Amino acid sequence: MKFYFLTLFPEVINSYLDHGIIKRAIDSGKVEAEVINIRDFSKDKHKRVDDYPFSGGPGMLMTPQPLADSIRSIPGWEKMEVIYPSPAGEPFNQVTAKNFAENNKDIIFICGHYEGIDQRIIDTFVTKEVSLGDFVLTGGELPALSFFDSIIRLKPGILGNNESSEDESFNEGLLEYPQFTRPQNFEGMEVPEILLSGDHKRIKDWKVKESIKRTKLKRPDLYRKYKEGEIENE
Amino acid sequence: MKFYFLTLFPEVINSYLDHGIIKRAIDSGKVEAEVINIRDFSKDKHKRVDDYPFSGGPGMLMTPQPLADSIRSIPGWEKMEVIYPSPAGEPFNQVTAKNFAENNKDIIFICGHYEGIDQRIIDTFVTKEVSLGDFVLTGGELPALSFFDSIIRLKPGILGNNESSEDESFNEGLLEYPQFTRPQNFEGMEVPEILLSGDHKRIKDWKVKESIKRTKLKRPDLYRKYKEGEIENE
Repeated sequence: MKFYFLTLFPEVINSYLDHGIIKRAIDSGKVEAEVINIRDFSKDKHKRVDDYPFSGGPGMLMTPQPLADSIRSIPGWEKMEVIYPSPAGEPFNQVTAKNFAENNKDIIFICGHYEGIDQRIIDTFVTKEVSLGDFVLTGGELPALSFFDSIIRLKPGILGNNESSEDESFNEGLLEYPQFTRPQNFEGMEVPEILLSGDHKRIKDWKVKESIKRTKLKRPDLYRKYKEGEIENE
Repeated sequence: MKFYFLTLFPEVINSYLDHGIIKRAIDSGKVEAEVINIRDFSKDKHKRVDDYPFSGGPGMLMTPQPLADSIRSIPGWEKMEVIYPSPAGEPFNQVTAKNFAENNKDIIFICGHYEGIDQRIIDTFVTKEVSLGDFVLTGGELPALSFFDSIIRLKPGILGNNESSEDESFNEGLLEYPQFTRPQNFEGMEVPEILLSGDHKRIKDWKVKESIKRTKLKRPDLYRKYKEGEIENE
């Protein structure tokens, strides 16, 4: 699976690609990533990539020409998923991540800046507008990297034994139970006794109970969905 | 307002701080940021920062000692907001961003890795667990940077004329209307005629109408809230 990042700030993307699990995944060849500087495609003599909006008001927009040409520079772009991260998109969640990972289609991310990009680029090229959440950022790099990160960590062989994608938040539609590591006593605070019992059955029950308790308390919306799913599964 | 990032990957944070609007904000002294490497505080002879969970199962957790000591190394940490980005936290949105920006309290972000951090750190130090969304990432750097970015762009004087935080998504609880910039005709596609009319009243009406239409179509949940608010305001 290959990912293309169209951006005005290649160094931001490159530094993320060059760390931790992501770097390991790329070095192993299990995932490919390419960073494309949109400005390189500007036909403006000053390499400008933004202009005033027709609708008036403050702010600048990214002009269509450099975006269109940078997308078209990618061989086979017509068959790829072209994702524009934007607050107006479909909200991203773990199910979206799983779908992209399973579809295995190459992905082009368009990282917007300023007030956004010209609507004609969205209408012509974008296959999915996806939102990181109901808030506004200075650019599309963090959403694109977040989508990328959560998708690739679900691909087989990416996470090592130290990480694991089983047994984590949202796998059952529930939040994760509290976690404890060494030392058993940290500054006077003890690990819950049950976790030291060695009784796997009781530990498993505890985890499920804690996950449910926590979800009910912190995210009644998720808890409701979980209960509905349970009823359906009966 | 000062932000501290506790991380195992300082270069990821530093590269984000060194670009675009963020860099300008820091250079101007309007925002301060400091990156702290958690590993520097490990008392383990191999500088380890992770260990096996007591609950069994795959994955590793971040141990409490290096985290506790790196938090305590920050002068005045007791009075700061200590934020742990985690899927189990309160969902982040534009209202959360505004509240943090207005409160003006210094913020410490704890960027977790592996399967997460020891619960005793959350219980002892964390003032707010905040979630970027219902999905799982390899680390807390992208959520911390997203929170940081969306908070600081709301501070006075951070955005220049080219960006502007007025007239954007979620300001009225609605998605933004479609935007167009030069050229008027791009590869045969025309800008909507009304935007060229110069009739400010009609353009304003068009923007509102488009925002409402789009929100209704793409985000019925937001549209419902918007309608409820309208009724309340009558």
